[in-house]
Amino acid sequence: MENFYRFLFFVCAAAAVGVLSIIFVVIWVLHYKEGLAWDGGAAEFNLHPVLMVAGFIFLQGTAIIIFRLPWTWACNKLVMKLIHAGLHLSAFTLAVISTVAVFDFHNNAKIPNMYSLHSWLGLAAVILYCLQIVVGVVLYLVPITPVAWRAAFMPYHVFCGTLLFVGIIAVALMGITEKLIFSLKIPKYSESPPEGIFVNVLGVLLVVFGALVVFTATRVPWKRPNDQVLHTLHTNEGGEDSGKVGPSLSELSHAADADDTDVRRRIGKLDETN
Amino acid sequence: MENFYRFLFFVCAAAAVGVLSIIFVVIWVLHYKEGLAWDGGAAEFNLHPVLMVAGFIFLQGTAIIIFRLPWTWACNKLVMKLIHAGLHLSAFTLAVISTVAVFDFHNNAKIPNMYSLHSWLGLAAVILYCLQIVVGVVLYLVPITPVAWRAAFMPYHVFCGTLLFVGIIAVALMGITEKLIFSLKIPKYSESPPEGIFVNVLGVLLVVFGALVVFTATRVPWKRPNDQVLHTLHTNEGGEDSGKVGPSLSELSHAADADDTDVRRRIGKLDETN
Repeated sequence: MENFYRFLFFVCAAAAVGVLSIIFVVIWVLHYKEGLAWDGGAAEFNLHPVLMVAGFIFLQGTAIIIFRLPWTWACNKLVMKLIHAGLHLSAFTLAVISTVAVFDFHNNAKIPNMYSLHSWLGLAAVILYCLQIVVGVVLYLVPITPVAWRAAFMPYHVFCGTLLFVGIIAVALMGITEKLIFSLKIPKYSESPPEGIFVNVLGVLLVVFGALVVFTATRVPWKRPNDQVLHTLHTNEGGEDSGKVGPSLSELSHAADADDTDVRRRIGKLDETN
Repeated sequence: MENFYRFLFFVCAAAAVGVLSIIFVVIWVLHYKEGLAWDGGAAEFNLHPVLMVAGFIFLQGTAIIIFRLPWTWACNKLVMKLIHAGLHLSAFTLAVISTVAVFDFHNNAKIPNMYSLHSWLGLAAVILYCLQIVVGVVLYLVPITPVAWRAAFMPYHVFCGTLLFVGIIAVALMGITEKLIFSLKIPKYSESPPEGIFVNVLGVLLVVFGALVVFTATRVPWKRPNDQVLHTLHTNEGGEDSGKVGPSLSELSHAADADDTDVRRRIGKLDETN
Protein backbone atom coordinates (compact mmCIF):
# COMPACT_ATOMS: atom_id res chain seq x y z
CA MET A 1 0.00 0.00 0.00
CA GLU A 2 1.17 3.50 -0.93
CA ASN A 3 2.01 5.69 2.09
CA PHE A 4 0.94 3.02 4.59
CA TYR A 5 1.92 5.04 7.67
CA ARG A 6 -0.01 8.08 6.41
CA PHE A 7 -3.03 5.82 5.85
CA LEU A 8 -2.60 4.40 9.36
CA PHE A 9 -2.47 7.91 10.80
CA PHE A 10 -5.72 8.89 9.07
CA VAL A 11 -7.56 5.71 10.09
CA CYS A 12 -6.38 5.95 13.71
CA ALA A 13 -7.25 9.66 13.80
CA ALA A 14 -10.74 8.91 12.43
CA ALA A 15 -11.25 6.14 15.02
CA ALA A 16 -9.98 8.35 17.88
CA VAL A 17 -12.14 11.35 16.87
CA GLY A 18 -15.15 9.07 16.33
CA VAL A 19 -14.81 7.46 19.78
CA LEU A 20 -14.23 10.91 21.34
CA SER A 21 -17.48 12.13 19.71
CA ILE A 22 -19.37 9.24 21.32
CA ILE A 23 -17.79 10.01 24.71
CA PHE A 24 -18.76 13.68 24.31
CA VAL A 25 -22.39 12.96 23.42
CA VAL A 26 -22.70 10.49 26.33
CA ILE A 27 -21.22 13.04 28.77
CA TRP A 28 -23.60 15.66 27.35
CA VAL A 29 -26.74 13.64 28.11
CA LEU A 30 -25.54 12.09 31.40
CA HIS A 31 -23.77 15.08 32.95
CA TYR A 32 -25.53 18.13 31.49
CA LYS A 33 -28.95 16.64 30.66
CA GLU A 34 -31.48 14.23 32.16
CA GLY A 35 -29.72 10.93 31.40
CA LEU A 36 -31.14 8.10 29.31
CA ALA A 37 -34.46 6.23 29.60
CA TRP A 38 -37.41 5.07 27.49
CA ASP A 39 -40.04 7.00 29.45
CA GLY A 40 -41.52 9.41 26.91
CA GLY A 41 -39.76 12.33 28.63
CA ALA A 42 -36.55 14.31 28.21
CA ALA A 43 -34.39 11.25 28.98
CA GLU A 44 -36.00 9.47 26.01
CA PHE A 45 -35.23 12.43 23.77
CA ASN A 46 -31.58 12.11 24.88
CA LEU A 47 -31.41 8.73 23.13
CA HIS A 48 -31.77 10.68 19.88
CA PRO A 49 -28.33 12.40 19.85
CA VAL A 50 -26.56 9.39 21.43
CA LEU A 51 -27.89 6.85 18.90
CA MET A 52 -27.39 9.25 15.99
CA VAL A 53 -23.74 9.90 16.85
CA ALA A 54 -22.79 6.35 17.94
CA GLY A 55 -24.99 4.60 15.36
CA PHE A 56 -25.91 6.64 12.34
CA ILE A 57 -22.58 8.52 12.16
CA PHE A 58 -19.85 6.35 13.77
CA LEU A 59 -21.09 2.94 12.51
CA GLN A 60 -21.79 4.37 9.06
CA GLY A 61 -18.28 5.86 8.91
CA THR A 62 -16.84 2.49 9.93
CA ALA A 63 -18.88 0.75 7.20
CA ILE A 64 -17.57 3.22 4.63
CA ILE A 65 -13.86 2.68 5.34
CA ILE A 66 -14.01 -1.05 6.09
CA PHE A 67 -12.94 -1.90 2.51
CA ARG A 68 -9.85 0.33 2.86
CA LEU A 69 -8.32 -1.58 5.80
CA PRO A 70 -5.43 -3.64 4.37
CA TRP A 71 -5.86 -6.25 7.14
CA THR A 72 -9.16 -7.21 5.49
CA TRP A 73 -7.83 -7.57 1.95
CA ALA A 74 -7.06 -11.27 2.47
CA CYS A 75 -10.70 -11.91 3.41
CA ASN A 76 -13.24 -13.26 1.00
CA LYS A 77 -14.88 -10.31 -0.82
CA LEU A 78 -18.39 -11.62 -0.11
CA VAL A 79 -17.64 -11.73 3.63
CA MET A 80 -16.41 -8.13 3.46
CA LYS A 81 -19.55 -7.09 1.59
CA LEU A 82 -21.68 -8.75 4.29
CA ILE A 83 -19.76 -6.91 7.04
CA HIS A 84 -20.19 -3.63 5.09
CA ALA A 85 -23.94 -4.27 4.69
CA GLY A 86 -24.30 -5.44 8.31
CA LEU A 87 -22.69 -2.28 9.68
CA HIS A 88 -24.96 -0.11 7.50
CA LEU A 89 -28.01 -2.11 8.60
CA SER A 90 -27.02 -1.68 12.27
CA ALA A 91 -26.57 2.07 11.70
CA PHE A 92 -30.00 2.23 10.05
CA THR A 93 -31.66 0.28 12.90
CA LEU A 94 -30.20 2.64 15.52
CA ALA A 95 -31.27 5.64 13.40
CA VAL A 96 -34.85 4.34 13.29
CA ILE A 97 -34.93 3.77 17.10
CA SER A 98 -33.45 7.24 17.54
CA THR A 99 -36.14 8.75 15.27
CA VAL A 100 -38.93 6.91 17.09
CA ALA A 101 -37.56 8.22 20.42
CA VAL A 102 -37.78 11.85 19.29
CA PHE A 103 -41.30 11.43 17.81
CA ASP A 104 -42.41 9.75 21.06
CA PHE A 105 -40.96 12.59 23.14
CA HIS A 106 -42.60 15.25 20.90
CA ASN A 107 -45.98 13.52 21.05
CA ASN A 108 -45.87 13.25 24.85
CA ALA A 109 -44.78 16.89 25.23
CA LYS A 110 -47.31 18.12 22.62
CA ILE A 111 -44.50 19.51 20.46
CA PRO A 112 -45.30 19.44 16.72
CA ASN A 113 -43.30 17.02 14.57
CA MET A 114 -41.69 17.70 11.21
CA TYR A 115 -41.74 21.51 11.16
CA SER A 116 -37.99 22.22 11.14
CA LEU A 117 -35.42 21.97 8.37
CA HIS A 118 -33.53 19.54 10.65
CA SER A 119 -36.54 17.21 10.72
CA TRP A 120 -37.19 17.50 6.96
CA LEU A 121 -33.61 16.70 5.98
CA GLY A 122 -33.20 14.15 8.79
CA LEU A 123 -36.24 12.10 7.80
CA ALA A 124 -35.27 12.37 4.11
CA ALA A 125 -31.80 11.06 5.02
CA VAL A 126 -33.23 8.06 6.94
CA ILE A 127 -35.56 7.16 4.03
CA LEU A 128 -32.83 7.60 1.38
CA TYR A 129 -30.39 5.60 3.53
CA CYS A 130 -32.91 2.74 3.65
CA LEU A 131 -33.29 2.96 -0.14
CA GLN A 132 -29.50 2.96 -0.54
CA ILE A 133 -29.25 -0.26 1.54
CA VAL A 134 -32.03 -1.98 -0.45
CA VAL A 135 -30.50 -1.01 -3.82
CA GLY A 136 -27.03 -1.99 -2.56
CA VAL A 137 -28.21 -5.45 -1.48
CA VAL A 138 -30.05 -6.05 -4.78
CA LEU A 139 -27.08 -4.92 -6.86
CA TYR A 140 -24.11 -6.34 -4.95
CA LEU A 141 -25.37 -9.25 -2.84
CA VAL A 142 -28.04 -10.89 -5.02
CA PRO A 143 -25.94 -13.30 -7.13
CA ILE A 144 -28.00 -13.05 -10.33
CA THR A 145 -27.60 -9.26 -10.78
CA PRO A 146 -25.74 -8.75 -14.10
CA VAL A 147 -22.13 -7.64 -13.77
CA ALA A 148 -22.73 -4.76 -16.19
CA TRP A 149 -25.32 -3.30 -13.80
CA ARG A 150 -22.98 -3.70 -10.84
CA ALA A 151 -20.15 -1.88 -12.59
CA ALA A 152 -22.46 0.80 -14.03
CA PHE A 153 -24.06 1.61 -10.69
CA MET A 154 -20.89 1.48 -8.55
CA PRO A 155 -19.99 5.19 -8.96
CA TYR A 156 -23.57 6.13 -8.02
CA HIS A 157 -23.52 3.72 -5.03
CA VAL A 158 -20.28 5.28 -3.78
CA PHE A 159 -21.39 8.86 -4.46
CA CYS A 160 -24.82 8.45 -2.84
CA GLY A 161 -23.30 6.69 0.19
CA THR A 162 -20.73 9.44 0.70
CA LEU A 163 -23.35 12.16 0.15
CA LEU A 164 -25.67 10.59 2.72
CA PHE A 165 -22.84 10.29 5.26
CA VAL A 166 -21.87 13.96 4.85
CA GLY A 167 -25.53 15.04 4.77
CA ILE A 168 -26.29 13.17 8.01
CA ILE A 169 -23.41 14.95 9.76
CA ALA A 170 -24.84 18.28 8.51
CA VAL A 171 -28.27 17.28 9.87
CA ALA A 172 -26.65 16.41 13.23
CA LEU A 173 -25.03 19.88 13.37
CA MET A 174 -28.45 21.46 12.78
CA GLY A 175 -29.91 19.25 15.54
CA ILE A 176 -27.18 20.35 17.97
CA THR A 177 -27.93 23.99 17.11
CA GLU A 178 -31.68 23.51 17.70
CA LYS A 179 -31.22 21.66 20.99
CA LEU A 180 -28.78 24.19 22.45
CA ILE A 181 -31.05 27.14 21.57
CA PHE A 182 -34.15 25.41 22.96
CA SER A 183 -32.65 23.90 26.11
CA LEU A 184 -30.17 26.53 27.33
CA LYS A 185 -32.21 29.21 29.08
CA ILE A 186 -30.41 30.29 32.29
CA PRO A 187 -27.73 31.03 31.24
CA LYS A 188 -28.68 31.26 27.55
CA TYR A 189 -26.69 29.74 24.67
CA SER A 190 -25.59 33.26 23.68
CA GLU A 191 -23.87 33.65 27.07
CA SER A 192 -21.56 30.73 26.23
CA PRO A 193 -22.22 28.50 29.25
CA PRO A 194 -19.95 25.43 29.70
CA GLU A 195 -22.60 23.15 28.15
CA GLY A 196 -22.80 25.35 25.04
CA ILE A 197 -19.04 25.30 24.55
CA PHE A 198 -18.81 21.56 25.30
CA VAL A 199 -21.47 20.68 22.72
CA ASN A 200 -19.99 23.08 20.15
CA VAL A 201 -16.77 21.04 20.51
CA LEU A 202 -18.84 17.89 19.87
CA GLY A 203 -20.03 19.51 16.62
CA VAL A 204 -16.44 20.29 15.60
CA LEU A 205 -15.44 16.66 16.36
CA LEU A 206 -18.23 15.38 14.09
CA VAL A 207 -16.98 17.60 11.25
CA VAL A 208 -13.39 16.38 11.73
CA PHE A 209 -14.59 12.74 11.86
CA GLY A 210 -16.55 13.21 8.61
CA ALA A 211 -13.58 14.83 6.86
CA LEU A 212 -11.17 12.05 7.95
CA VAL A 213 -13.55 9.26 6.86
CA VAL A 214 -14.33 10.81 3.46
CA PHE A 215 -10.62 11.54 2.81
CA THR A 216 -9.62 7.97 3.71
CA ALA A 217 -12.43 6.48 1.63
CA THR A 218 -11.91 8.57 -1.51
CA ARG A 219 -8.08 8.57 -1.71
CA VAL A 220 -7.44 6.48 -4.83
CA PRO A 221 -4.09 4.87 -3.82
CA TRP A 222 -5.73 3.49 -0.65
CA LYS A 223 -8.46 1.56 -2.44
CA ARG A 224 -8.61 -2.21 -2.03
CA PRO A 225 -6.49 -3.92 -4.68
CA ASN A 226 -8.52 -6.61 -6.36
CA ASP A 227 -7.37 -8.25 -9.55
CA GLN A 228 -10.68 -9.99 -9.99
CA VAL A 229 -13.09 -7.16 -9.25
CA LEU A 230 -15.39 -7.89 -12.19
CA HIS A 231 -15.18 -11.62 -11.54
CA THR A 232 -16.22 -11.06 -7.94
CA LEU A 233 -18.91 -8.57 -8.93
CA HIS A 234 -20.22 -11.09 -11.43
CA THR A 235 -20.19 -14.28 -9.45
CA ASN A 236 -20.07 -13.46 -5.72
CA GLU A 237 -17.27 -16.08 -5.57
CA GLY A 238 -19.54 -18.87 -6.78
CA GLY A 239 -21.99 -17.81 -9.44
CA GLU A 240 -22.63 -19.12 -12.88
CA ASP A 241 -19.56 -17.65 -14.50
CA SER A 242 -16.85 -18.58 -12.05
CA GLY A 243 -14.62 -19.93 -14.78
CA LYS A 244 -14.01 -16.43 -16.07
CA VAL A 245 -11.07 -15.08 -14.10
CA GLY A 246 -9.31 -12.78 -16.54
CA PRO A 247 -11.31 -9.69 -17.50
CA SER A 248 -9.87 -7.83 -20.47
CA LEU A 249 -8.26 -4.45 -20.05
CA SER A 250 -11.17 -2.79 -21.83
CA GLU A 251 -13.57 -4.30 -19.28
CA LEU A 252 -11.38 -2.97 -16.50
CA SER A 253 -11.29 0.40 -18.20
CA HIS A 254 -15.10 0.54 -18.29
CA ALA A 255 -15.20 -0.50 -14.65
CA ALA A 256 -12.60 2.07 -13.67
CA ASP A 257 -15.04 3.95 -11.50
CA ALA A 258 -15.81 0.74 -9.64
CA ASP A 259 -12.21 0.28 -8.62
CA ASP A 260 -9.61 2.58 -10.13
CA THR A 261 -6.85 0.70 -8.32
CA ASP A 262 -7.13 -2.17 -10.78
CA VAL A 263 -6.66 0.15 -13.70
CA ARG A 264 -3.75 1.88 -12.01
CA ARG A 265 -2.03 -1.43 -11.31
CA ARG A 266 -2.53 -2.50 -14.92
CA ILE A 267 -0.95 0.76 -16.04
CA GLY A 268 1.99 0.03 -13.77
CA LYS A 269 2.44 -3.44 -15.27
CA LEU A 270 2.18 -2.14 -18.85
CA ASP A 271 4.52 0.70 -18.01
CA GLU A 272 7.15 -1.70 -16.65
CA THR A 273 7.15 -3.50 -19.99
CA ASN A 274 7.65 -0.29 -21.99
CA MET B 1 -17.39 13.63 -23.81
CA GLU B 2 -19.03 10.52 -22.34
CA ASN B 3 -22.80 10.88 -21.76
CA PHE B 4 -22.82 14.52 -22.90
CA TYR B 5 -26.57 14.94 -22.55
CA ARG B 6 -26.52 13.53 -19.01
CA PHE B 7 -23.71 15.95 -18.18
CA LEU B 8 -25.74 18.80 -19.72
CA PHE B 9 -28.75 17.81 -17.60
CA PHE B 10 -26.71 17.88 -14.38
CA VAL B 11 -25.05 21.24 -15.18
CA CYS B 12 -28.37 22.85 -16.19
CA ALA B 13 -30.08 21.40 -13.10
CA ALA B 14 -27.29 22.76 -10.87
CA ALA B 15 -27.56 26.22 -12.50
CA ALA B 16 -31.36 26.22 -12.21
CA VAL B 17 -31.38 25.13 -8.56
CA GLY B 18 -28.59 27.59 -7.74
CA VAL B 19 -30.44 30.53 -9.33
CA LEU B 20 -33.67 29.40 -7.63
CA SER B 21 -31.84 29.42 -4.26
CA ILE B 22 -30.76 33.02 -4.86
CA ILE B 23 -34.34 34.01 -5.80
CA PHE B 24 -35.62 32.30 -2.64
CA VAL B 25 -33.14 34.05 -0.31
CA VAL B 26 -33.89 37.44 -1.92
CA ILE B 27 -37.67 36.90 -1.56
CA TRP B 28 -37.07 35.85 2.06
CA VAL B 29 -35.33 39.08 3.05
CA LEU B 30 -37.44 41.44 0.86
CA HIS B 31 -40.88 39.91 1.38
CA TYR B 32 -40.73 38.27 4.82
CA LYS B 33 -37.98 40.33 6.47
CA GLU B 34 -36.83 43.96 6.67
CA GLY B 35 -35.19 44.28 3.24
CA LEU B 36 -31.54 45.17 2.61
CA ALA B 37 -29.48 48.12 3.85
CA TRP B 38 -26.12 48.94 5.47
CA ASP B 39 -27.60 50.60 8.55
CA GLY B 40 -26.41 48.43 11.43
CA GLY B 41 -29.93 47.06 11.90
CA ALA B 42 -31.93 44.02 10.82
CA ALA B 43 -31.71 45.01 7.14
CA GLU B 44 -27.92 44.86 7.40
CA PHE B 45 -28.11 41.40 8.95
CA ASN B 46 -30.18 40.36 5.91
CA LEU B 47 -27.15 40.92 3.68
CA HIS B 48 -25.61 37.92 5.50
CA PRO B 49 -27.85 35.16 4.05
CA VAL B 50 -28.11 36.86 0.63
CA LEU B 51 -24.34 37.25 0.16
CA MET B 52 -23.63 33.79 1.57
CA VAL B 53 -26.06 32.07 -0.80
CA ALA B 54 -25.33 34.17 -3.92
CA GLY B 55 -21.63 34.58 -3.23
CA PHE B 56 -20.07 31.99 -0.99
CA ILE B 57 -22.25 29.10 -2.22
CA PHE B 58 -23.37 29.87 -5.80
CA LEU B 59 -20.13 31.51 -7.03
CA GLN B 60 -18.02 28.86 -5.29
CA GLY B 61 -20.08 26.10 -6.94
CA THR B 62 -19.59 27.79 -10.32
CA ALA B 63 -15.83 28.02 -9.72
CA ILE B 64 -15.72 24.29 -8.88
CA ILE B 65 -17.42 23.08 -12.07
CA ILE B 66 -15.93 25.64 -14.48
CA PHE B 67 -13.21 23.16 -15.56
CA ARG B 68 -15.87 20.56 -16.42
CA LEU B 69 -17.65 22.69 -19.04
CA PRO B 70 -16.59 21.31 -22.46
CA TRP B 71 -17.10 24.74 -24.09
CA THR B 72 -14.07 25.94 -22.09
CA TRP B 73 -11.75 23.09 -23.07
CA ALA B 74 -10.46 24.96 -26.10
CA CYS B 75 -9.39 27.88 -23.87
CA ASN B 76 -5.84 28.37 -22.66
CA LYS B 77 -5.43 26.48 -19.34
CA LEU B 78 -3.89 29.52 -17.63
CA VAL B 79 -6.92 31.64 -18.57
CA MET B 80 -9.21 28.97 -17.11
CA LYS B 81 -7.15 28.84 -13.91
CA LEU B 82 -7.44 32.64 -13.62
CA ILE B 83 -11.25 32.45 -14.07
CA HIS B 84 -11.38 29.65 -11.43
CA ALA B 85 -9.28 31.72 -9.01
CA GLY B 86 -11.23 34.91 -9.81
CA LEU B 87 -14.57 33.28 -9.03
CA HIS B 88 -13.21 31.91 -5.74
CA LEU B 89 -11.77 35.33 -4.86
CA SER B 90 -15.15 36.97 -5.59
CA ALA B 91 -16.89 34.36 -3.43
CA PHE B 92 -14.41 35.02 -0.61
CA THR B 93 -14.87 38.82 -0.88
CA LEU B 94 -18.66 38.51 -0.61
CA ALA B 95 -18.25 36.10 2.32
CA VAL B 96 -16.07 38.63 4.16
CA ILE B 97 -18.59 41.46 3.54
CA SER B 98 -21.36 39.12 4.68
CA THR B 99 -19.43 38.28 7.87
CA VAL B 100 -18.71 41.94 8.62
CA ALA B 101 -22.45 42.68 8.19
CA VAL B 102 -23.43 40.13 10.83
CA PHE B 103 -20.74 41.26 13.30
CA ASP B 104 -21.86 44.88 12.78
CA PHE B 105 -25.50 43.95 13.40
CA HIS B 106 -24.60 41.94 16.53
CA ASN B 107 -22.46 44.77 17.94
CA ASN B 108 -25.22 47.34 17.39
CA ALA B 109 -27.87 45.08 18.92
CA LYS B 110 -25.58 44.07 21.84
CA ILE B 111 -25.80 40.40 20.81
CA PRO B 112 -22.64 38.41 21.64
CA ASN B 113 -20.51 37.21 18.72
CA MET B 114 -18.99 33.78 18.23
CA TYR B 115 -20.96 31.75 20.74
CA SER B 116 -22.80 29.38 18.41
CA LEU B 117 -21.58 26.30 16.53
CA HIS B 118 -22.74 28.08 13.35
CA SER B 119 -20.37 30.97 14.07
CA TRP B 120 -17.44 28.69 15.04
CA LEU B 121 -17.68 26.57 11.90
CA GLY B 122 -18.59 29.55 9.69
CA LEU B 123 -15.56 31.62 10.71
CA ALA B 124 -13.32 28.54 10.45
CA ALA B 125 -14.66 27.98 6.91
CA VAL B 126 -13.94 31.59 5.87
CA ILE B 127 -10.37 31.40 7.25
CA LEU B 128 -9.67 27.98 5.69
CA TYR B 129 -11.17 29.15 2.38
CA CYS B 130 -8.75 32.10 2.39
CA LEU B 131 -5.89 29.68 3.11
CA GLN B 132 -7.06 27.40 0.28
CA ILE B 133 -7.00 30.34 -2.16
CA VAL B 134 -3.50 31.43 -1.06
CA VAL B 135 -2.08 27.90 -1.31
CA GLY B 136 -3.87 27.39 -4.66
CA VAL B 137 -2.36 30.57 -6.12
CA VAL B 138 1.15 29.71 -4.87
CA LEU B 139 0.93 26.14 -6.20
CA TYR B 140 -0.89 26.57 -9.51
CA LEU B 141 -0.43 30.18 -10.63
CA VAL B 142 3.13 31.03 -9.55
CA PRO B 143 5.18 29.79 -12.54
CA ILE B 144 8.26 28.66 -10.57
CA THR B 145 6.43 26.13 -8.37
CA PRO B 146 7.91 22.68 -9.16
CA VAL B 147 5.66 20.38 -11.20
CA ALA B 148 6.15 17.58 -8.66
CA TRP B 149 4.61 19.76 -5.92
CA ARG B 150 1.66 20.66 -8.19
CA ALA B 151 0.90 17.04 -8.99
CA ALA B 152 1.45 15.90 -5.39
CA PHE B 153 -0.87 18.54 -3.92
CA MET B 154 -3.64 18.33 -6.55
CA PRO B 155 -5.66 15.59 -4.74
CA TYR B 156 -5.48 17.63 -1.51
CA HIS B 157 -6.43 20.84 -3.35
CA VAL B 158 -9.47 19.11 -4.86
CA PHE B 159 -10.45 17.36 -1.62
CA CYS B 160 -10.10 20.48 0.57
CA GLY B 161 -12.01 22.59 -1.97
CA THR B 162 -14.89 20.10 -2.12
CA LEU B 163 -14.90 19.68 1.67
CA LEU B 164 -15.06 23.45 2.18
CA PHE B 165 -17.91 23.76 -0.33
CA VAL B 166 -19.95 21.02 1.37
CA GLY B 167 -19.04 22.34 4.83
CA ILE B 168 -20.16 25.87 3.93
CA ILE B 169 -23.57 24.55 2.81
CA ALA B 170 -23.85 22.72 6.15
CA VAL B 171 -23.00 25.97 7.98
CA ALA B 172 -25.69 27.77 5.92
CA LEU B 173 -28.27 25.15 6.98
CA MET B 174 -27.34 25.77 10.63
CA GLY B 175 -27.65 29.52 10.05
CA ILE B 176 -31.14 29.07 8.55
CA THR B 177 -32.14 26.96 11.57
CA GLU B 178 -30.86 29.62 14.03
CA LYS B 179 -32.51 32.52 12.20
CA LEU B 180 -35.91 30.82 11.92
CA ILE B 181 -35.94 29.88 15.62
CA PHE B 182 -34.86 33.39 16.72
CA SER B 183 -37.01 35.46 14.36
CA LEU B 184 -40.30 33.53 14.14
CA LYS B 185 -42.24 34.34 17.30
CA ILE B 186 -45.93 34.91 16.39
CA PRO B 187 -46.58 32.40 14.93
CA LYS B 188 -43.57 30.36 16.12
CA TYR B 189 -41.37 28.21 13.83
CA SER B 190 -42.93 25.10 15.41
CA GLU B 191 -46.36 26.21 14.11
CA SER B 192 -45.07 25.95 10.51
CA PRO B 193 -45.88 29.49 9.31
CA PRO B 194 -45.48 30.23 5.56
CA GLU B 195 -42.06 31.83 6.16
CA GLY B 196 -40.84 28.72 8.00
CA ILE B 197 -41.89 26.41 5.19
CA PHE B 198 -40.55 28.78 2.51
CA VAL B 199 -37.11 28.98 4.12
CA ASN B 200 -37.04 25.22 4.78
CA VAL B 201 -37.48 24.82 1.00
CA LEU B 202 -34.50 27.19 0.53
CA GLY B 203 -32.47 24.82 2.73
CA VAL B 204 -33.53 21.82 0.63
CA LEU B 205 -32.55 23.72 -2.55
CA LEU B 206 -29.07 24.40 -1.13
CA VAL B 207 -28.60 20.69 -0.39
CA VAL B 208 -29.71 19.74 -3.93
CA PHE B 209 -27.41 22.40 -5.42
CA GLY B 210 -24.46 21.06 -3.42
CA ALA B 211 -25.17 17.46 -4.43
CA LEU B 212 -25.44 18.37 -8.15
CA VAL B 213 -22.21 20.40 -8.11
CA VAL B 214 -20.18 17.76 -6.24
CA PHE B 215 -21.52 14.96 -8.48
CA THR B 216 -20.68 16.91 -11.65
CA ALA B 217 -17.23 17.84 -10.36
CA THR B 218 -16.20 14.38 -9.15
CA ARG B 219 -17.53 12.22 -12.00
CA VAL B 220 -14.32 10.94 -13.61
CA PRO B 221 -15.53 10.68 -17.26
CA TRP B 222 -16.53 14.36 -17.18
CA LYS B 223 -13.08 15.66 -16.25
CA ARG B 224 -11.31 18.03 -18.64
CA PRO B 225 -9.26 16.01 -21.15
CA ASN B 226 -5.73 17.36 -21.21
CA ASP B 227 -2.96 15.43 -22.88
CA GLN B 228 -0.34 17.80 -21.51
CA VAL B 229 -1.43 18.08 -17.91
CA LEU B 230 2.06 17.79 -16.45
CA HIS B 231 3.46 20.05 -19.15
CA THR B 232 0.89 22.70 -18.28
CA LEU B 233 1.39 22.19 -14.57
CA HIS B 234 5.11 22.58 -15.04
CA THR B 235 5.29 25.57 -17.33
CA ASN B 236 2.00 27.53 -17.19
CA GLU B 237 2.14 27.44 -21.02
CA GLY B 238 5.46 29.25 -21.20
CA GLY B 239 7.94 28.20 -18.55
CA GLU B 240 11.44 26.90 -18.78
CA ASP B 241 10.58 23.41 -19.90
CA SER B 242 8.16 24.08 -22.73
CA GLY B 243 10.00 21.80 -25.08
CA LYS B 244 8.85 18.77 -23.08
CA VAL B 245 5.48 17.78 -24.46
CA GLY B 246 5.38 14.03 -24.02
CA PRO B 247 5.28 12.87 -20.38
CA SER B 248 5.98 9.20 -19.92
CA LEU B 249 3.24 6.82 -18.90
CA SER B 250 4.82 6.39 -15.47
CA GLU B 251 4.65 10.16 -14.95
CA LEU B 252 1.00 10.10 -15.93
CA SER B 253 0.45 7.19 -13.58
CA HIS B 254 1.94 9.15 -10.68
CA ALA B 255 -0.20 12.16 -11.63
CA ALA B 256 -3.34 10.04 -11.89
CA ASP B 257 -4.99 11.84 -9.01
CA ALA B 258 -4.36 15.16 -10.71
CA ASP B 259 -6.26 14.11 -13.81
CA ASP B 260 -7.39 10.51 -14.09
CA THR B 261 -8.83 11.18 -17.55
CA ASP B 262 -5.36 11.15 -19.04
CA VAL B 263 -4.65 7.77 -17.55
CA ARG B 264 -7.98 6.40 -18.73
CA ARG B 265 -7.36 7.63 -22.28
CA ARG B 266 -3.89 6.04 -22.27
CA ILE B 267 -5.47 2.75 -21.19
CA GLY B 268 -7.90 3.02 -24.10
CA LYS B 269 -5.06 3.57 -26.55
CA LEU B 270 -3.01 0.68 -25.16
CA ASP B 271 -6.06 -1.51 -25.13
CA GLU B 272 -6.77 -0.84 -28.79
CA THR B 273 -3.31 -2.11 -29.65
CA ASN B 274 -3.75 -5.35 -27.69
